[in-house]
Amino acid sequence: MFRGFLCARKTSQANENAFNKEARRQQAKYAIAHGASRNGEENIMEFLSGVTEKEALELDELLKPERIGSTVKVNGAVHTVRDMGDVVFVVLRKRGGLLQCVFEEGTSSLAAEKIREAQTVELTGTLSADERAPHGVELRVTEGEILTTPYDTLPLPIGKWKLKTSLEAKLNNRSIELRNVRERAKFRLQEGIVRGFRDFLYSQQFTEIHTPKIGAKGAEGGSNIFKLDYFHRPAVLAQSPQFYKQMMVGVFDRVFETAPVFRAEKHNTKRHLNEYTSLDFEMGYIDSFVDIMEMETGFLQYTMKLLEEKYADELRILNVTLPNVEQIPMVRFDRAKQLVSEKYDRPIRNPYDLEPEEESLIGKYFKEEYGADFVFVTHYPSKKRPFYAMDDPEDPTFTLSFDLLYGGLEITTGGQRIHDYQMLRDKIAARGMSEEGMDQYLDTFKYGMPKHGGLGIGLERLTMKLVGEDNVRETTLFPRDLSRLEP
Amino acid sequence: MFRGFLCARKTSQANENAFNKEARRQQAKYAIAHGASRNGEENIMEFLSGVTEKEALELDELLKPERIGSTVKVNGAVHTVRDMGDVVFVVLRKRGGLLQCVFEEGTSSLAAEKIREAQTVELTGTLSADERAPHGVELRVTEGEILTTPYDTLPLPIGKWKLKTSLEAKLNNRSIELRNVRERAKFRLQEGIVRGFRDFLYSQQFTEIHTPKIGAKGAEGGSNIFKLDYFHRPAVLAQSPQFYKQMMVGVFDRVFETAPVFRAEKHNTKRHLNEYTSLDFEMGYIDSFVDIMEMETGFLQYTMKLLEEKYADELRILNVTLPNVEQIPMVRFDRAKQLVSEKYDRPIRNPYDLEPEEESLIGKYFKEEYGADFVFVTHYPSKKRPFYAMDDPEDPTFTLSFDLLYGGLEITTGGQRIHDYQMLRDKIAARGMSEEGMDQYLDTFKYGMPKHGGLGIGLERLTMKLVGEDNVRETTLFPRDLSRLEP
Repeated sequence: MFRGFLCARKTSQANENAFNKEARRQQAKYAIAHGASRNGEENIMEFLSGVTEKEALELDELLKPERIGSTVKVNGAVHTVRDMGDVVFVVLRKRGGLLQCVFEEGTSSLAAEKIREAQTVELTGTLSADERAPHGVELRVTEGEILTTPYDTLPLPIGKWKLKTSLEAKLNNRSIELRNVRERAKFRLQEGIVRGFRDFLYSQQFTEIHTPKIGAKGAEGGSNIFKLDYFHRPAVLAQSPQFYKQMMVGVFDRVFETAPVFRAEKHNTKRHLNEYTSLDFEMGYIDSFVDIMEMETGFLQYTMKLLEEKYADELRILNVTLPNVEQIPMVRFDRAKQLVSEKYDRPIRNPYDLEPEEESLIGKYFKEEYGADFVFVTHYPSKKRPFYAMDDPEDPTFTLSFDLLYGGLEITTGGQRIHDYQMLRDKIAARGMSEEGMDQYLDTFKYGMPKHGGLGIGLERLTMKLVGEDNVRETTLFPRDLSRLEP
Repeated sequence: MFRGFLCARKTSQANENAFNKEARRQQAKYAIAHGASRNGEENIMEFLSGVTEKEALELDELLKPERIGSTVKVNGAVHTVRDMGDVVFVVLRKRGGLLQCVFEEGTSSLAAEKIREAQTVELTGTLSADERAPHGVELRVTEGEILTTPYDTLPLPIGKWKLKTSLEAKLNNRSIELRNVRERAKFRLQEGIVRGFRDFLYSQQFTEIHTPKIGAKGAEGGSNIFKLDYFHRPAVLAQSPQFYKQMMVGVFDRVFETAPVFRAEKHNTKRHLNEYTSLDFEMGYIDSFVDIMEMETGFLQYTMKLLEEKYADELRILNVTLPNVEQIPMVRFDRAKQLVSEKYDRPIRNPYDLEPEEESLIGKYFKEEYGADFVFVTHYPSKKRPFYAMDDPEDPTFTLSFDLLYGGLEITTGGQRIHDYQMLRDKIAARGMSEEGMDQYLDTFKYGMPKHGGLGIGLERLTMKLVGEDNVRETTLFPRDLSRLEP
């Protein structure tokens, strides 16, 4: 397997295997960093053999009980400096969390007065247990080095526990304000959600796909499509991977994608974005569209457990109570409307649509009546769903589709799709749509497809509800909306 | 934790916990699928509690030795039908692989003559060991049902082992031709690469981010940017997440993203795409830019092991020999040029650029001399790298940057970035560029940043080299190039 890598050299380097690997690595680093090998030394040829251990330790290492009392080196950004006279407390921000470092007068070769907020530093000292420090440990500094220094004082007090800054100001200083520990924790939890989605679906034998975001035609049609010029041809940005994931069900049975989607909607609300991350899946050989909702329930169960196990710090920092996902109720669209109309004494204005306030009341109803954080609303009216939605054979006014509401907000739309070629074409015709540009999509059905369905989850909305925010921009790294195209 | 979900109902349903869960699930499915609950039965409220086991088994279950001799149900697509007279062999295509099903005359209630290619079917029978069958098992069919039937015969012989079809014809029938087992295996390996990238970086404490693809300004500048209209404002599609990932180094230390990038380059070559999936990472607190290459080496080592362990079937189907990643040589740009010029007797035409043929020869050189499949080429000329690249303090004509070549093809570009605010502004000015639209990017450095660097890997190119293809479109699900915008 390791085909003569070290001994293939024609010169007598056959015993090179005996070399100490670490020594060679250091030599290599030195050689590359200092440009030694370009001076023509024929014998110098360096190799990399993977990640090497760093002397500076991360928080997970520092928190091992056996480290207490030992001399350690750490690096990080200066998060806060608190000068108490003969003692200066410097809190470092590391990727794993905060670390308190203590400068006592006369004990450190690096003077504490030189330390300023937003520097990056490398400090050496003795690790000590101290209950008052974050994570119960602190570093008693003996020496150190300032690595980099900022050019100005920070525009926001990121060292504070809660950043009481307007959303607008936060977005205008996004790369700075996210250095606040609570602010960044939201996006760690967002990572956990995507990670849970993928890992759960891998375990359920889904295949991950990557579909193009530039195309000739949108999947849903309509006016909410961004248009662009593609080498002098008209093109659009994908509103969803819908066509592609259906096409791939015939290949892989079960597929998923986690990728951006683009909606040119002119909504300016707290829950709409013009670009967001969509967690999409599509699955074949379903018995009914309930299979899809069961799969989503499984994803939520898996993910909440993952968050509990691997993102406990972030849950604690944000004081998040995980939602109840053991059992998720489902209710028909028309029945849900009727239930909230009765309980909250609210007339049904439009029997074929859910107003945002009705969604919110459905959430309230199921929370009050069943303690449920989530509720599947099923059987949306056909006229409100795209052409590829499977109508309910019992009553084609409705579809075998659903939304998932979380705290009264739609975070998922899904359902069974039409798998029969003729039925699909008939529906396209009945809607007065054109088949233009859908050739390969339609061919997929002509050449045989299993019964299937799927869903799309809005990642930022799900994160928003999880962390208890009320504006989706709070949980979008760099939101895009009607007015915001930067940074 | 499970807050009165089942007993919160005001009516006397307190003992509902005793209900058999499976029975309730079946009832729920029935109720939803048949619309029972909409007729106003007050007592019916259904709950989903996750993924439930299916009667029809997947290949991993079928291959358990204890299944041999038992009666099982399976579903799948009819991949091939071979009529031998009194015996008909029907091979099903399932997500886990192929399954041979045998119809012997008079033993099945479903007549074998009704089975046609590209149907989806559900079959029941006895599972038997047979060395001649794929995976060593076959199903002796006793009954079955045809689930769906195609409207036409397949346009490509996807049942053949090797699909001898032109790339053009394959792309024109993408959702059909990928039903060929070898064709789809390429994209399973592609999944393994992305999965390896993410899992390895999670283990190295990177945080996954999602950055916008629509923006006001490109990271690299230049003419290869797709332009679009964003609510009557000019906007562009992201060429890379470069600015964003650097900005997030100040927040998370280490970040990565796996997402589409867009390049409006007018190249029409076998290795260029106008949209591709970029595996990007960026890491802070590096000692030198060798750290970045070591991280990439670690990713490759982890991923090859993952492929070996979890994608053994696909490796076997495609007859892939995994590349040597135990140690990866690195060589300076200028030295690499000199080495191939000497060995292959080729004059150096341009000392500041690598021609594709030179890249290819560097690959050849390191394969011949060291048995190496990969080689890091370091210290690219400054004038060929973007403004944010860190110049080599020893000689600012060159940068602390690298490309990774795989079999002589560039699959990665990376390097150390400028972390000093003033140095960055000076470089922008020296290049005659404008700071317009870079405010938040530049502010990130003004308010302090650690020494850092990162890289971007072209997923489709890496997959192409791994499976031994010579056109990147072969390993792109739905390629976008100068002429192809559909499907």
